[in-house]
Amino acid sequence: MLRLDSRDPAFDADFARLLSVKREVAEDVDETVRGIIAAVVERGDEALVAYTRRFDGYGAEFTAAALRVTPEEVDAAVAAAPREALDALHLARERIETYHRAQLPADHRETDALGVTLGWRWTALESVGLYVPGGTASYPSSVLMNAIPAKVAGVKRLAMVVPMPGGVTNPLVLAAARLAGVDEIFRIGGAQAVAALAYGTATISPVAKIVGPGNAYVAAAKRRVFGQVGIDMIAGPSEVLILADDSANPDWVAADLLAQAEHDPAAQAILITDSDTLAAAVAVAVEGQLSTLPRVAIARASWRDYGAILRVARLADAIPLVDRLAPEHLEIEARDAEALSARVRNAGAIFLGAHTPEAIGDYVGGPNHVLPTARSARFSSGLGVLDFMKRTSLLSCSPEALRALGPAAVALGRAEGLDGHARSVAIRLNL
Amino acid sequence: MLRLDSRDPAFDADFARLLSVKREVAEDVDETVRGIIAAVVERGDEALVAYTRRFDGYGAEFTAAALRVTPEEVDAAVAAAPREALDALHLARERIETYHRAQLPADHRETDALGVTLGWRWTALESVGLYVPGGTASYPSSVLMNAIPAKVAGVKRLAMVVPMPGGVTNPLVLAAARLAGVDEIFRIGGAQAVAALAYGTATISPVAKIVGPGNAYVAAAKRRVFGQVGIDMIAGPSEVLILADDSANPDWVAADLLAQAEHDPAAQAILITDSDTLAAAVAVAVEGQLSTLPRVAIARASWRDYGAILRVARLADAIPLVDRLAPEHLEIEARDAEALSARVRNAGAIFLGAHTPEAIGDYVGGPNHVLPTARSARFSSGLGVLDFMKRTSLLSCSPEALRALGPAAVALGRAEGLDGHARSVAIRLNL
Repeated sequence: MLRLDSRDPAFDADFARLLSVKREVAEDVDETVRGIIAAVVERGDEALVAYTRRFDGYGAEFTAAALRVTPEEVDAAVAAAPREALDALHLARERIETYHRAQLPADHRETDALGVTLGWRWTALESVGLYVPGGTASYPSSVLMNAIPAKVAGVKRLAMVVPMPGGVTNPLVLAAARLAGVDEIFRIGGAQAVAALAYGTATISPVAKIVGPGNAYVAAAKRRVFGQVGIDMIAGPSEVLILADDSANPDWVAADLLAQAEHDPAAQAILITDSDTLAAAVAVAVEGQLSTLPRVAIARASWRDYGAILRVARLADAIPLVDRLAPEHLEIEARDAEALSARVRNAGAIFLGAHTPEAIGDYVGGPNHVLPTARSARFSSGLGVLDFMKRTSLLSCSPEALRALGPAAVALGRAEGLDGHARSVAIRLNL
Repeated sequence: MLRLDSRDPAFDADFARLLSVKREVAEDVDETVRGIIAAVVERGDEALVAYTRRFDGYGAEFTAAALRVTPEEVDAAVAAAPREALDALHLARERIETYHRAQLPADHRETDALGVTLGWRWTALESVGLYVPGGTASYPSSVLMNAIPAKVAGVKRLAMVVPMPGGVTNPLVLAAARLAGVDEIFRIGGAQAVAALAYGTATISPVAKIVGPGNAYVAAAKRRVFGQVGIDMIAGPSEVLILADDSANPDWVAADLLAQAEHDPAAQAILITDSDTLAAAVAVAVEGQLSTLPRVAIARASWRDYGAILRVARLADAIPLVDRLAPEHLEIEARDAEALSARVRNAGAIFLGAHTPEAIGDYVGGPNHVLPTARSARFSSGLGVLDFMKRTSLLSCSPEALRALGPAAVALGRAEGLDGHARSVAIRLNL
């Protein structure tokens, strides 16, 4: 864990170094992925079945007919899911849906003084593919967070892929898919699943956009199919930045730092405080809580390699540091949390006050937990309804409006050396 | 030029082939670009000056001090610009600004029945870089279309780069920059300009996002710096699809097809009609108008290689074809233009009625002319104010709200094997 003090003369250089730390190891899987995509494009279901047999441990009994998860399997999963978690998913679904409904954008249309009717309209994407990782990273909450905004947007066909190595799946993942209104589920994963969603096979119709997290192969495949289909951002390791003063409870702050650290050895948890007392108490509390955490090895590695406690003279001094770090998650546990929050420009999500641990937002708060990582909150937003819609602009001129606007268009067309542009206007006006 | 008839048994296969035509030749410039970016990251201004000398034909007198275009140079450009075009730019600026102001999104904040305060707020990107190509593709209208939404969004610092090979520049480009409120202008281009904007040099501060069109080197550089900064979409060759019935004027339709074709030999202009008479008349009119077009060679190549006239039994049959083509520009010149338009899902921009040639939208209509190409209107939108803003979600729980929501978050954290998440909530509730 790194300790920095903004009053230290070396602080600027040290902070710049903290900003530039790369927490992701880029695995070079692109050649493999290229081959897998080409095979799925060429041989469709046959390639998909072959890869799935090989990577997910199925035998010859696994055929194209088995790609699709049946409604009966989902029924069985819902029946097998632990009741308490299922109830929690219901609550989450409701809250996430309510929050995202408020994001539905308005169409616009007006006729101006010249007689030009103009505006835009939003339409939902026709079809979306949702990638869900298999194994331990198969999170039902992520199914809700990706699927619900798509359905709120009005996406008609939402096709989910989730690898089930050895036939094993998390019943809560299927239950979450049912709750969120997922229309089709396929037991495939990896680059082959991304290729199938992008290009289609006999069993799987192609989609317009693919969203959802995945490993290096999935990320490389998404990059490769981009253009053929849309993709969401490629998420990096998760991060939290906690801004706290001496009113904060060090045990709570430590628990929040570790909730981040337990995600991934490359996750990052940072505390910025104006209190030496809090800094010291949090450092002790982290060590104390680490030992009783089931994912102790992961959390310990994250805290050791990427954790940091930054001491600033006044919390207000932290604002420019926050904006440069542009954290995925920002918790503010300080007396003037509201006022501090209002001054922050770059953060994916802000959690205000001591009673708002980030985990509430991960599950049941309502806002999306798919958020920009690796400082990309400087220029991008968390997942939302707009990611599943697109805007078409509308323009309509009356003959009078064309007479009013035409000469300027002709002048600009000619000035740009695009006489064909100018002519398309002039020919209508006998210019 | 391709002719298809939807009543032909081979139509489906032919149309699928039309959809899959690749109009862009991918130049392999990535290794060169990688080297240029690395040099600018490492040696800053020195590398930038060296590349600019080499690629833009400057001598040793060109130093870092000359990178920035001075306000006096912009004054001189404005004075030298042709008055008629300048007036047209003023009109365009006003109309584009008015249209985009309506796109400013609303913040949202509410407190629900449980006592959870939640919502989001939008903030402008702090700084944006705008790439403007040099030479004949240096379009003042594109400066307005990229810069105005950024300024409407509230971007404080808008830095434009434009190469000036041999010191030559289009005065209207600088005039448009002034009109649109561009804050800084640098006479650089290519991958080196993209690298300077992304990573910064002594003379150029880094930006959060880079937008604007460019050649293969610029596109490759934008792809490479993505992540370090945001980028806009990488635009492909431009396209128009015209949907017309026998009420349309064949000369006007032909002029509109050619206004598209003159952009680029890889541009695509397609007519879909239910009228054999119109189809024949347009084909003749295109040939007639081609010969008198200054950019005849470009337009002829585009029409020959990628132009198409599709005959359908009824215009309504064209709607699914339109949605699959997902054109950048869709013109509807038919009796029931409104009704047809309402049924289209995938199009970047729609131009309604015979008096709305696309060129009006290119210059002075108001909507943005930066639009999704290559069928990407299936999943993306034209440039707008939202591209220069990002959304931060907000969540704040009262102690009572945490008590209400906490148990569900604890249940889901445990169900997902993330006990640290569960603990961060439980520790606050003494669970």
